[in-house]
Amino acid sequence: MSIKVGILNVAGYVGAELARLIEAHPDAELVAVTGRSTAGQSLRGVLPYYTGRDLTIAETLKGDVDVVFSALPHAASAVQLVDYLKAGVRCIDLSADFRLNDAELYRKWYKVTHPDPALLGEAVYGLTELNRERIKSAKLVACPGCFPTGALLGLLPLLKKGLIDAWAIVDAKTGVSGAGRSAKAEFGFGELTASVNAYGVAGHRHKPEILQEMERLFGAECDLRFVPHLVPMARGILSTIYTKLAPDADLAKPILEVYREFFADEPFITITESPPKTKFATGSNHTFIHAHADELGNVTIITALDNLVKGAAGQAVQNFNLMFGLAETRGLGAIGVYP
Amino acid sequence: MSIKVGILNVAGYVGAELARLIEAHPDAELVAVTGRSTAGQSLRGVLPYYTGRDLTIAETLKGDVDVVFSALPHAASAVQLVDYLKAGVRCIDLSADFRLNDAELYRKWYKVTHPDPALLGEAVYGLTELNRERIKSAKLVACPGCFPTGALLGLLPLLKKGLIDAWAIVDAKTGVSGAGRSAKAEFGFGELTASVNAYGVAGHRHKPEILQEMERLFGAECDLRFVPHLVPMARGILSTIYTKLAPDADLAKPILEVYREFFADEPFITITESPPKTKFATGSNHTFIHAHADELGNVTIITALDNLVKGAAGQAVQNFNLMFGLAETRGLGAIGVYP
Amino acid sequence: MSIKVGILNVAGYVGAELARLIEAHPDAELVAVTGRSTAGQSLRGVLPYYTGRDLTIAETLKGDVDVVFSALPHAASAVQLVDYLKAGVRCIDLSADFRLNDAELYRKWYKVTHPDPALLGEAVYGLTELNRERIKSAKLVACPGCFPTGALLGLLPLLKKGLIDAWAIVDAKTGVSGAGRSAKAEFGFGELTASVNAYGVAGHRHKPEILQEMERLFGAECDLRFVPHLVPMARGILSTIYTKLAPDADLAKPILEVYREFFADEPFITITESPPKTKFATGSNHTFIHAHADELGNVTIITALDNLVKGAAGQAVQNFNLMFGLAETRGLGAIGVYP
Amino acid sequence: MSIKVGILNVAGYVGAELARLIEAHPDAELVAVTGRSTAGQSLRGVLPYYTGRDLTIAETLKGDVDVVFSALPHAASAVQLVDYLKAGVRCIDLSADFRLNDAELYRKWYKVTHPDPALLGEAVYGLTELNRERIKSAKLVACPGCFPTGALLGLLPLLKKGLIDAWAIVDAKTGVSGAGRSAKAEFGFGELTASVNAYGVAGHRHKPEILQEMERLFGAECDLRFVPHLVPMARGILSTIYTKLAPDADLAKPILEVYREFFADEPFITITESPPKTKFATGSNHTFIHAHADELGNVTIITALDNLVKGAAGQAVQNFNLMFGLAETRGLGAIGVYP
Repeated sequence: MSIKVGILNVAGYVGAELARLIEAHPDAELVAVTGRSTAGQSLRGVLPYYTGRDLTIAETLKGDVDVVFSALPHAASAVQLVDYLKAGVRCIDLSADFRLNDAELYRKWYKVTHPDPALLGEAVYGLTELNRERIKSAKLVACPGCFPTGALLGLLPLLKKGLIDAWAIVDAKTGVSGAGRSAKAEFGFGELTASVNAYGVAGHRHKPEILQEMERLFGAECDLRFVPHLVPMARGILSTIYTKLAPDADLAKPILEVYREFFADEPFITITESPPKTKFATGSNHTFIHAHADELGNVTIITALDNLVKGAAGQAVQNFNLMFGLAETRGLGAIGVYP
Repeated sequence: MSIKVGILNVAGYVGAELARLIEAHPDAELVAVTGRSTAGQSLRGVLPYYTGRDLTIAETLKGDVDVVFSALPHAASAVQLVDYLKAGVRCIDLSADFRLNDAELYRKWYKVTHPDPALLGEAVYGLTELNRERIKSAKLVACPGCFPTGALLGLLPLLKKGLIDAWAIVDAKTGVSGAGRSAKAEFGFGELTASVNAYGVAGHRHKPEILQEMERLFGAECDLRFVPHLVPMARGILSTIYTKLAPDADLAKPILEVYREFFADEPFITITESPPKTKFATGSNHTFIHAHADELGNVTIITALDNLVKGAAGQAVQNFNLMFGLAETRGLGAIGVYP
Repeated sequence: MSIKVGILNVAGYVGAELARLIEAHPDAELVAVTGRSTAGQSLRGVLPYYTGRDLTIAETLKGDVDVVFSALPHAASAVQLVDYLKAGVRCIDLSADFRLNDAELYRKWYKVTHPDPALLGEAVYGLTELNRERIKSAKLVACPGCFPTGALLGLLPLLKKGLIDAWAIVDAKTGVSGAGRSAKAEFGFGELTASVNAYGVAGHRHKPEILQEMERLFGAECDLRFVPHLVPMARGILSTIYTKLAPDADLAKPILEVYREFFADEPFITITESPPKTKFATGSNHTFIHAHADELGNVTIITALDNLVKGAAGQAVQNFNLMFGLAETRGLGAIGVYP
Repeated sequence: MSIKVGILNVAGYVGAELARLIEAHPDAELVAVTGRSTAGQSLRGVLPYYTGRDLTIAETLKGDVDVVFSALPHAASAVQLVDYLKAGVRCIDLSADFRLNDAELYRKWYKVTHPDPALLGEAVYGLTELNRERIKSAKLVACPGCFPTGALLGLLPLLKKGLIDAWAIVDAKTGVSGAGRSAKAEFGFGELTASVNAYGVAGHRHKPEILQEMERLFGAECDLRFVPHLVPMARGILSTIYTKLAPDADLAKPILEVYREFFADEPFITITESPPKTKFATGSNHTFIHAHADELGNVTIITALDNLVKGAAGQAVQNFNLMFGLAETRGLGAIGVYP
């Protein structure tokens, strides 16, 4: 089988990662790519490390495609995807446009009116481990943000089983590629190397997204604190999640065992004996999770993933596999590039 | 004035940093240094970057000294310092030997019986901003651990004013030099670069130290969670501290203002408008602090310092200045080496 | 087809990289692995990032294998491979044991008498682009060192065409994984981060290997200077090669064109318009080459590769493909993980 | 003594480093600073790590100054310095405007007509170890580029003694701060971390500067090849210099001895037993040099320095000390911040 794939905005980090993964996929063929400032150039000219089949970057997707992946920024993404959806092309969106269910919340955090609020109800939130069945038949999948992926996977077993208090603190540490291929002085090598800093302390766009899914799973309002940090590495997100067992919760076994059982059938989740390194996941779609509970019920969960793979392009391909009836791991078998 | 200084165990990262700072101090003279495996070699032979006056490393301090700084590991440090104290030499200890007041707690965390528990009561805990007056006349100063320095400085205003609930979560991110000049494969460059990981999730030796001082300041039992992380940088500690205002607390002004006023006269503390980078402090004795409170009373405090300077050798020199009647900033004026 | 593969010494960086690549290979099956200190443990226990099929590490290869890859250190490798060769198993050696043709030269540089000098004549030097045909039928392939791979690929067009003077200076910059998963303090993160240094200025073991092949290609004695440098990155080798066109050489076209034509059919070599970054090749078997000649005939060639892939495990798999009649690119299609 | 200092363009990396060093200088007082986009802001607002005395950044220097340091870009620097020179203020220029003696050469490499070619003859080239006496009385000092400082210090003993052939190859590896606080995507953290690359292979502006001084010292035309490389570190330059002893040269002693004797009285040069790391010099004005000669007369020299200190602001202060009759090491005693 060869499914024809188009990528919108291929020249950014997420778009380029999609191209890398699609090129390695045995059942997909990359047939068209778009760019903004790079239109007219070749893929290999713009991405000199790219050793896949070359394509010319166009302003709009040329020819027929079976599926569109969008790596466009928010707002721009929804505007372009609407047309493909109308034409019956299945869409996988990696922007924030269809993650929040509430157009008002979207406007508050993204400072723009949603281009097509009616579509919000049709999009399936693409955290694969959460919505596997719904993704299979989805026309439009809204891939989660990189931080929500790490936070929600870590909380999933406890939220689903109703074992925790209604609060969590997520202290996340991300590599710099999350900021995109930016031409800002503040993301310069000299500014970020050999250092770590927090940002978004007063509020970050991924917080309402985590909270939305957390409350949906918990079935009640939750209290969430979320602080992201910038770490001198290109890729990776480590989420250290602090919460507490509910007073009446009884794990009945060591928490690591609870996590192992819960995720036993998940092909992309590995429970580790000790806290994982983000570089376990470099270039891979895997998430590594460790959990610890003390005698007072304090729970600490740590998740490690590659923000550009499981946090973006890899999860998108995982969803694509489900949407097209392929094995979920198809094309995603790569082991992390370590060290 | 020229005060004669001896350093025990000069060849590790902390000992070498002490030598660097003492060499730059206008009123101190480094007259004797010891080492274990390096005894018999010259300081510049062992530390080829060291461009200060050369000395031969000995097994024990030769000649008269006015003060001894110990960068020995715990247990070994107390054993050697006892003799100097008996001889009337003032001692500044950078090991953990005199930080905890309770010999039993020490044995629990450091897995060794304290060599001289009677001295625990005589040592002054050397967090300068907390114990300035007592340090001036101290015979023995126990310099705080690097993590406790970052955590306690951040909590100090709220603890002293009784403004918070009796709990805190400290998520700390440290550079690798905190592990010393180690010959373990797990601290190899390949293992740590381009990655971040948590460690000590089930318990870290600096936790009881933070808790001891936190409770002393708060005046009651506290609940503390502490998780350190390893970040790919040589120096620096960022502490992200989560807590909550007490229900009846009234800051009366923005929290940043509260912090600015509290630390207004502190020469080594700067309150920053936005979250600080650890590299602001590289090579400097400064701590940079940012604080944020939301409308629910959730408080996030972020402190950034150099673990080898304010977190170790620099704070030791700051205490030394007080003990010998010098200006507290003497020899410590260096601005961070940025970028 | 499923070819049964065994790996000797799987727990080091090169052995683990072999396992990663074999696991991703559609026509190979990893059936047995050995380790020294890790024998008895599971592959996933020793390599926690490893998400491939698990195996128990043994002291010797258990069961039948069609091919043995050896990631053992020199001397130890030859000793073990001799038995497999006698048993008719094809061997791919990644140690230095069969690279040099001269047992005396081997003893001089590796400080040990060669365990089986008679085999030196049987081994084929596994620089694929140089010895493709001979590798196909080889019983024993000696994979080149990482530095020789980068240096020789860069010089190949000029040496084969006899266009240069009989000398070259190779200034190489390597990532730290080349030193292996070492427990030496000098390879600690703190010692190497944010710094670069030369080493082996008075002589490095890869020099005689480069010189041997250089002279074989040039057909006469050559003058080679080689200085490796350690750069703060886990992977990658950049070789900057300085030489000069022979007085009578006539390129007839821009040197970049000469390189493009020479390597036109090579699946793993890409000529770049401007100097390549080592990270173009991270995790990939590709070598990126740029060349420049000035009006005086001064030639500068720059090659970039991943020392653990094209410089070790990847080239070994490339040779394996040839030895077993597979497409040379089989299992090696991965694009570099960038950024 | 308190000498009044002004700095032009204080907000870039070089200007900020000047401020850091002047602030630590016991005989200098920073009284006025200028900026372009930052005019009107405070020094500590623009440089949040800066813990020195605060000043308001102005568009032009306000009030009297005894000396002006210019960290302006080329062309802009000469235009502004001319006025100060006319007013009798001594000037230390860190731009390229007064380094080359030939206005035509300047135009060729810097793509702009020199604003005041008559001044070229008056400027003293500020490589302190070369022109110490002339610098003392200079009105205008042209501080060398960072690469020329590293290359020329390494070649100095052999050039002055006429011991080498008329050629050298300089393979330089620089930290990223050499590119300034740039807002270009190509200097982003993600683009440069975990990688190394060459640039300027076809020609770099520092080459004519090195060649000019090399030929002046050698007394004849020389052949120089120079290739700079970008290494993932904020600071530091390592220069690996390849040359050959002249056929009739007789060192009479090991080359390391020759270097030790030649630089014996230099306060900022240390000869090292083995190749130095750039991080030996982080934040320090020192240059570390190692040299090796083989039995064929091939000489390899390695120099390590901090591009922002000895390669820029530190050497400027060293020259300032000479110009104002101070001890050459005044204010520059800091030992490298290691690790």
